[in-house]
Amino acid sequence: MNRKPLFITIEGGDGSGKTTMIGRLSAYMQNRSIPYLITREPGGIEIAEKIRSVILDPKHTSMDARTEALLYAAARRQHLAEKVEPALAEGLTVICDRFVDSSLVYQGMARGIGVEEVWAINQFAIESRMPDLTLLFDIDPEVGLSRIMANEDREFNRLDMENLAFHQVVRDGYRLLADQYPERIKVIDASKSPSQVEREMIRVLEGAVLKDF
Amino acid sequence: MNRKPLFITIEGGDGSGKTTMIGRLSAYMQNRSIPYLITREPGGIEIAEKIRSVILDPKHTSMDARTEALLYAAARRQHLAEKVEPALAEGLTVICDRFVDSSLVYQGMARGIGVEEVWAINQFAIESRMPDLTLLFDIDPEVGLSRIMANEDREFNRLDMENLAFHQVVRDGYRLLADQYPERIKVIDASKSPSQVEREMIRVLEGAVLKDF
Repeated sequence: MNRKPLFITIEGGDGSGKTTMIGRLSAYMQNRSIPYLITREPGGIEIAEKIRSVILDPKHTSMDARTEALLYAAARRQHLAEKVEPALAEGLTVICDRFVDSSLVYQGMARGIGVEEVWAINQFAIESRMPDLTLLFDIDPEVGLSRIMANEDREFNRLDMENLAFHQVVRDGYRLLADQYPERIKVIDASKSPSQVEREMIRVLEGAVLKDF
Repeated sequence: MNRKPLFITIEGGDGSGKTTMIGRLSAYMQNRSIPYLITREPGGIEIAEKIRSVILDPKHTSMDARTEALLYAAARRQHLAEKVEPALAEGLTVICDRFVDSSLVYQGMARGIGVEEVWAINQFAIESRMPDLTLLFDIDPEVGLSRIMANEDREFNRLDMENLAFHQVVRDGYRLLADQYPERIKVIDASKSPSQVEREMIRVLEGAVLKDF
């Protein structure tokens, strides 16, 4: 079978269970014998890792919101050029944890720069490479953050320290994008049990773009 | 006197004598008792310094041209927000060694990304802050590079290793911008002796925006 490899992105607020579901998505792809790559920015790409370390350094409290948005776009570009594009060219379906929608929501909406402006720099970064499918794990941020707090193993960084109102704007922003791009972005109710969320994810996958597999 | 502080940028290819002329411009400002700041990106701004070190690391041979352009825009943003804007707000005339025109020419033209695309990310970085005056030190790149080679004290970096054709595109690109924005960009013939170039620079300054000083 000559399947066109897909570019699938995973989005959602903190505590939405993205990491768990990506693990289950990996198992699904293996069971279906679909060649795939799971990645996330900076994805082990040295230049992107260095850019990321500048963004996340807790000492950088003076970082301007537009500087941060440009750095995310730069790390995205390098990861795309060095890892995602070569994998797609090899025929692998690429599953990427966060992509442009994260920047539109976090920098464009939650930090108040504006979606169109953040889209402009991301368009520069990704050129025409948009995801074929985006799975949005949607959850009330109070529930999401309480999940994080309960998980002692998870490291905190500067972004986790934002307040609840910020995360509410993030959730609303994601839902707004999903309303605008219903063909690409599929909303999955992440408040349910892991097995229920997984079933919904697989149903969406098979109903959307994997139906020919 | 309540003078509006000016934002002056200095542009030109390698070996055009920018550094020498900035020193003489500094002496001129002191003699005229005009409060001023001389800076260049990253300008001692910690975040911008770190971004710059990612760009200039000779190990980063796999850096994509668009990643590089986004990183320059990010360093520019942070330097502008932390150093240039506060200085202008304090009433200092700011003289900045390289600014957006460098990106338009080096990334947009010489690296072939396209001027309009590079302008889009720089517009994001600088918002409405354009220079009041840009002094372009114009020189044949063969002459400019031979000056660099003769100067043993100057450190070489990855950008110096580009070939002559690259620097020719840079020169032509600068002259094209000067043709497009003749009110803002003033071309100074940098092939003459330092004292002649200095006189021309002062004549341009006084004729353009400093005539009321």
